[in-house]
Amino acid sequence: MFSVCVRDHFMIAHSFRGDVFGPAQRPHGATFVVDVEFRRSTLDADGIVVDIGRAGEALRAALAELNFRNLDEVPAFRGRNTTTEFLAQVVFDRMAEAIGRGDLGASGREVESLRVTLHESHIAWAAFEGPVPRES
Amino acid sequence: MFSVCVRDHFMIAHSFRGDVFGPAQRPHGATFVVDVEFRRSTLDADGIVVDIGRAGEALRAALAELNFRNLDEVPAFRGRNTTTEFLAQVVFDRMAEAIGRGDLGASGREVESLRVTLHESHIAWAAFEGPVPRES
Amino acid sequence: MFSVCVRDHFMIAHSFRGDVFGPAQRPHGATFVVDVEFRRSTLDADGIVVDIGRAGEALRAALAELNFRNLDEVPAFRGRNTTTEFLAQVVFDRMAEAIGRGDLGASGREVESLRVTLHESHIAWAAFEGPVPRES
Amino acid sequence: MFSVCVRDHFMIAHSFRGDVFGPAQRPHGATFVVDVEFRRSTLDADGIVVDIGRAGEALRAALAELNFRNLDEVPAFRGRNTTTEFLAQVVFDRMAEAIGRGDLGASGREVESLRVTLHESHIAWAAFEGPVPRES
Amino acid sequence: MFSVCVRDHFMIAHSFRGDVFGPAQRPHGATFVVDVEFRRSTLDADGIVVDIGRAGEALRAALAELNFRNLDEVPAFRGRNTTTEFLAQVVFDRMAEAIGRGDLGASGREVESLRVTLHESHIAWAAFEGPVPRES
Amino acid sequence: MFSVCVRDHFMIAHSFRGDVFGPAQRPHGATFVVDVEFRRSTLDADGIVVDIGRAGEALRAALAELNFRNLDEVPAFRGRNTTTEFLAQVVFDRMAEAIGRGDLGASGREVESLRVTLHESHIAWAAFEGPVPRES
Repeated sequence: MFSVCVRDHFMIAHSFRGDVFGPAQRPHGATFVVDVEFRRSTLDADGIVVDIGRAGEALRAALAELNFRNLDEVPAFRGRNTTTEFLAQVVFDRMAEAIGRGDLGASGREVESLRVTLHESHIAWAAFEGPVPRES
Repeated sequence: MFSVCVRDHFMIAHSFRGDVFGPAQRPHGATFVVDVEFRRSTLDADGIVVDIGRAGEALRAALAELNFRNLDEVPAFRGRNTTTEFLAQVVFDRMAEAIGRGDLGASGREVESLRVTLHESHIAWAAFEGPVPRES
Repeated sequence: MFSVCVRDHFMIAHSFRGDVFGPAQRPHGATFVVDVEFRRSTLDADGIVVDIGRAGEALRAALAELNFRNLDEVPAFRGRNTTTEFLAQVVFDRMAEAIGRGDLGASGREVESLRVTLHESHIAWAAFEGPVPRES
Repeated sequence: MFSVCVRDHFMIAHSFRGDVFGPAQRPHGATFVVDVEFRRSTLDADGIVVDIGRAGEALRAALAELNFRNLDEVPAFRGRNTTTEFLAQVVFDRMAEAIGRGDLGASGREVESLRVTLHESHIAWAAFEGPVPRES
Repeated sequence: MFSVCVRDHFMIAHSFRGDVFGPAQRPHGATFVVDVEFRRSTLDADGIVVDIGRAGEALRAALAELNFRNLDEVPAFRGRNTTTEFLAQVVFDRMAEAIGRGDLGASGREVESLRVTLHESHIAWAAFEGPVPRES
Repeated sequence: MFSVCVRDHFMIAHSFRGDVFGPAQRPHGATFVVDVEFRRSTLDADGIVVDIGRAGEALRAALAELNFRNLDEVPAFRGRNTTTEFLAQVVFDRMAEAIGRGDLGASGREVESLRVTLHESHIAWAAFEGPVPRES
């Protein structure tokens, strides 16, 4: 199995609801350093997993909608805690959609699975991984 | 699959028995920077894999018994080489026990597997991973 | 010259005023990983620059007032942009005060200068450094 | 499952053929920081996955043939794009051969799978992983 | 003293002349991860050392002329060994020129000194630092 | 001012005397990841600060006497606490001696100052820096 991974980041404000979060129930924020790993069993004719330039652009586009936002005010997240693990899945879904739309080109369509990791500090990170959904 | 990971460290003395260890047969020591990754298929109602505060405390407690010790004098390790990979399993077992005791709360009981990584330097690390044992 | 450095972090929300900040004028946030370097010309009788345990506690205390806050609502920062470089000086001032109060013990009082670095992402950081002010 | 990982690096020149590579079609180069993870289900009698000293030497030997080379002039790579993911497989194959030859000793022969990661910058890496081929 | 630092990278081929370089006399290459630290004594009215967005763009522009090049073929470097320390000064000079041209805006003109660090691997880096030259 | 830095590591056991050390008074150990920065105002005729190959060998030799040792049993350290900051000076002194002996070659003799940093964990490091003593 081959992998290629690209890194970028975004910076947001948010707050959590639930006693489990303690002081993180207050409005605060985070820098998330994001790694997106693209996996497939074989390389394409160019010898790559995915066009790394397009992969980086697709990640930047996916994060641009989140970057410099207060996530408490994003309608799509209403009623949800935008935890690091939840946001890892959000980025996963957006990257899977980008692949489906062809934003990563022909090689991107052969990507079998993704792993998205969000580093929230030097001592904590969260991830979401799974197969790339295929349209029927 | 979702993951959450927390990091801490401990500092120990030890020595190894066996020609394969060369100069590491002499009394020496190590700093181990420890990553514990908690994995489960779904998030709980709060949107988390595990209470990260409790996870960090459980890891701190697990490492406290090892920290600032000469492992050659710990009865539980008598006759064993406390290699990095062996210690990764020791930390795994302690974290699994903490989950079983409920130290990580209700969300912690839903953790399906763990990966424990011990970084011994900037050029070497070891890990142990597996499912969290369930009581019968 | 000897140095000892300890690391911790805090997570905040804020926004900036001024065209230079572009989209960072919107409410957003950051994780700041903080390094505080303590410098002095000689070691004390115990062979240390500063009691590293107390240094870590003093840093934790200094950051606790900022952690999990919306800095736009902190009275002390009214009318100021809480940029990374500005916050580096804030942490510097608090650590200098802690030294002055004796929170770092007798060895701490011999610290001559500090350098405080705030990492805001994997590609950007800011710092403030200078001598520790002495009371007259 | 246990893992042990060792790190080393190599520095090469190369160029790529194919429009997808844009300016990377020009002669350029890279530093690759290489992590090789060795995996097996059980530890040997010494309590190790593999002799870490021998593992490091085998990796150094595998990289020595590539280090300080223009890969465009290496006959074995003629007609291939020496992308990061391709080179991850090259290092994988060489480490698997080293295991097969017994370069990692008896414990090395029990290694079940390998994961080879090549970091090409602070924002991109590639990997190849799979079972260690067994001779019939 | 305040500092702000931004990071980027470039990938080049080159070779060295001189016995001291051993196998690095052969055509090879490197990834250089570049940190540029901007220093000044006071913050501007916006509370910044320099417009970090412009700083990043100026660095990208400075590296673009080097990126994906064989430095042995760059006329400006004829007869010079493009060592890591030499290239640190090259990037320093280009950033100082960008400041002089006003590419970093008004706040950039107040930058007093720069430190440019080029990381060539996980075990080696080089730097050049000094005051920003002022036009007479 | 130019700098070149090389990294290596060593692993030791030790204990401390003095109430300030708390549980670190017990026999324990550490991995120290060591950075040695060599500084000089000008490059030599080859375009380097120092022969990086020789610098790495000199560092390896300096650390070899400490590596895999119980520092409590090293005669030279009798009655001293081998703290991280103390050991930074020990490595500094050994590197300065290596320069004085000519182990780093002719270019090494032009090194003006050194900074030695010992990373003891992901959250703490210590350093010693100063001019390279010149023989009279």
